[in-house]
Amino acid sequence: MGDSVTGVAILGCTGSIGTQSLDVLGALRDRFRVVGLAAGRNLSLFQQQIDQWQPALVACEREGDRAALAAGSAHWATLDEIATHPDIAIVIVATTGKVGLAPALAALRAGKAVALANKEALIMAGGLLQEAATAGGGSLRPVDSEHSAIWQCLWGERPEDVSRLILTASGGAFRDRSLDELRTVTPEQALRHPTWQMGRKITVDCATLFNKGLEAIEARWLFDVPLERVAIVMHRESIVHSLVEFSDGAMKAQLGLPDMRLPIQLALTYPERLPVHGAQALDLAAAGALHFETLDMNRLPCLRLALEAGRRGGAYPAVLAAADEVAVAAFLAGEIGFTAIAGVIEETLSAHRGGADADLAAILEADAWAREHAGRRIRVHAEAEPAASRSPAR
Amino acid sequence: MGDSVTGVAILGCTGSIGTQSLDVLGALRDRFRVVGLAAGRNLSLFQQQIDQWQPALVACEREGDRAALAAGSAHWATLDEIATHPDIAIVIVATTGKVGLAPALAALRAGKAVALANKEALIMAGGLLQEAATAGGGSLRPVDSEHSAIWQCLWGERPEDVSRLILTASGGAFRDRSLDELRTVTPEQALRHPTWQMGRKITVDCATLFNKGLEAIEARWLFDVPLERVAIVMHRESIVHSLVEFSDGAMKAQLGLPDMRLPIQLALTYPERLPVHGAQALDLAAAGALHFETLDMNRLPCLRLALEAGRRGGAYPAVLAAADEVAVAAFLAGEIGFTAIAGVIEETLSAHRGGADADLAAILEADAWAREHAGRRIRVHAEAEPAASRSPAR
Repeated sequence: MGDSVTGVAILGCTGSIGTQSLDVLGALRDRFRVVGLAAGRNLSLFQQQIDQWQPALVACEREGDRAALAAGSAHWATLDEIATHPDIAIVIVATTGKVGLAPALAALRAGKAVALANKEALIMAGGLLQEAATAGGGSLRPVDSEHSAIWQCLWGERPEDVSRLILTASGGAFRDRSLDELRTVTPEQALRHPTWQMGRKITVDCATLFNKGLEAIEARWLFDVPLERVAIVMHRESIVHSLVEFSDGAMKAQLGLPDMRLPIQLALTYPERLPVHGAQALDLAAAGALHFETLDMNRLPCLRLALEAGRRGGAYPAVLAAADEVAVAAFLAGEIGFTAIAGVIEETLSAHRGGADADLAAILEADAWAREHAGRRIRVHAEAEPAASRSPAR
Repeated sequence: MGDSVTGVAILGCTGSIGTQSLDVLGALRDRFRVVGLAAGRNLSLFQQQIDQWQPALVACEREGDRAALAAGSAHWATLDEIATHPDIAIVIVATTGKVGLAPALAALRAGKAVALANKEALIMAGGLLQEAATAGGGSLRPVDSEHSAIWQCLWGERPEDVSRLILTASGGAFRDRSLDELRTVTPEQALRHPTWQMGRKITVDCATLFNKGLEAIEARWLFDVPLERVAIVMHRESIVHSLVEFSDGAMKAQLGLPDMRLPIQLALTYPERLPVHGAQALDLAAAGALHFETLDMNRLPCLRLALEAGRRGGAYPAVLAAADEVAVAAFLAGEIGFTAIAGVIEETLSAHRGGADADLAAILEADAWAREHAGRRIRVHAEAEPAASRSPAR
């Protein structure tokens, strides 16, 4: 590998962030080489990516799927082997769920730059990721638009001068619905995000505002700021991606049109910026107005629950994330109504017993317990709710 | 002087920026000592300041005024002596007019940090200030809100990644007046700035948008970006103080309530930030909406004239600034109408003959010539205009 070419791995290469990462890398072939690709179960797309990118190392979720794939000269490897391979300097962790946690930890311990699009890793084990980075000399680079914005606003600033991180929230699909209307919204409606095109689970998490609670917890760990100093403001246009307030009262914001390729590319090229192939520039006068509103925490209780779990620490955020994953899947399958998602999360958090500290084993145990408990609560909700108000997502 | 205390001089200590600088320094007495103060003709305020701050070095505009002041243990000095004194590390240049130019050059050549609130120095001789800073190891720190915003947005960024500097403009007192209405506006009306409290000359320059043209030229020199890459967007609320656009399409903005003490303090404490005593925090949700519009260059030709002079370079910006100063004074005195300000500037610029390069002598000569020529043009306008449309400012 040439001196000037940086080796990159993508864990979760067939998902939304994974494919956009390959788009970005396609325009930067003189600087980056795709050395490792790891996919889930979308084998046909994975086969196309292997053929196109000719990675040295490949992985897929189920070992049994290997036979169905023509890997060519690539070697089959584990996620941890890819994440720590000496030819790889940057690991994009774009898996969903907890499968990204162990390789992210391993990559940080091996001194890699980890471009983290996976939420669960930071939510479940933000403290452990921080420790791994410190121990191994690795670094975390945010990939989503809000944290990338905060990251950019912090460049050249002293950590002690930061007074608040301010996440912007579009408000999701139901930002203008009353609490009463929310009882009968359908999965189809929840999947219509006003500004961003994303996966189904995260789009529902935007509609409940749960996602913004996760982002607050992520921000807490990415930038080492207490959760009490992470604020959220509603901003319908999704143009101000987030802000930082400093001790002298100055605020800095990062703005742009919604385009995930910008934060993805910046996580690769940092500390350099490069033109993003095909991206549209923001015209402020054409945008006209940027609006800011306070968020109604009572109407959408998932945000409040997420922040509470974040403040409690320990395995509570893992329980939170697991309960939400199970509840959102049940909502999308038409098993429970929209407002029951918060109910399931709240009931699962209430039943969890744990302290403010937790090691990886305790976190994984809490995750498994929470999935089971949330599943039981879903059956209770499903029986209590009128089936007429529900329909599975197409 | 103690190790941890930084010596500061203020040139122009009785003006708006000067007095606010002393306000800021009053709250930072453990970090800064006022070593030098230089005033214009406001002797009663200067006497109070001398009594309160006990500076080691003092200066006033007219030597004849020294006898009227009780300087105590302070020594009388020239502006250049103050600007280069070994006990002074930061020189706040808050004079108006060209009197700030020579001491700013001297301070930069002596390796000082120059907190520059004086516009004329950069407009007349931006290239010479850049050279002086390079030669002597001094540095320029912007003091006004727009350039401070851009400065903050550039921290941690590579110069080659900057694609545009975007100055915001409130639009001034006449932002909603038609070209026809502008013919009959009075000095009283021009002095009502919608968001900022400032001196009279600069407030009129805001109403003509001339000030924004000066700021574009200043930005060009402060941040070493070609004038073609300095853009202006109208923003009524004066909350986004300015923005930077980068090569990847990302924009960064600095926001805050209008309060000059923030940029003044930052120019002193850089690279640290400290709470600004008594400053109010910005509440985005309370602000509600931030608006952006394109500027109508035809309605207010002073902006276009300023940008043209900036592009031509040489002594043209000095001619521009001198003609404006004379024309605004004539407008405030009721000698000419508001729209004649642009006429006087345009006619003076048209009559100037010069190339793209000019040394200090050529610049000062052009300044003197422009004042005389603008004075002649004012008499022509005064005779041509109906006197009924004019009244001096109270």
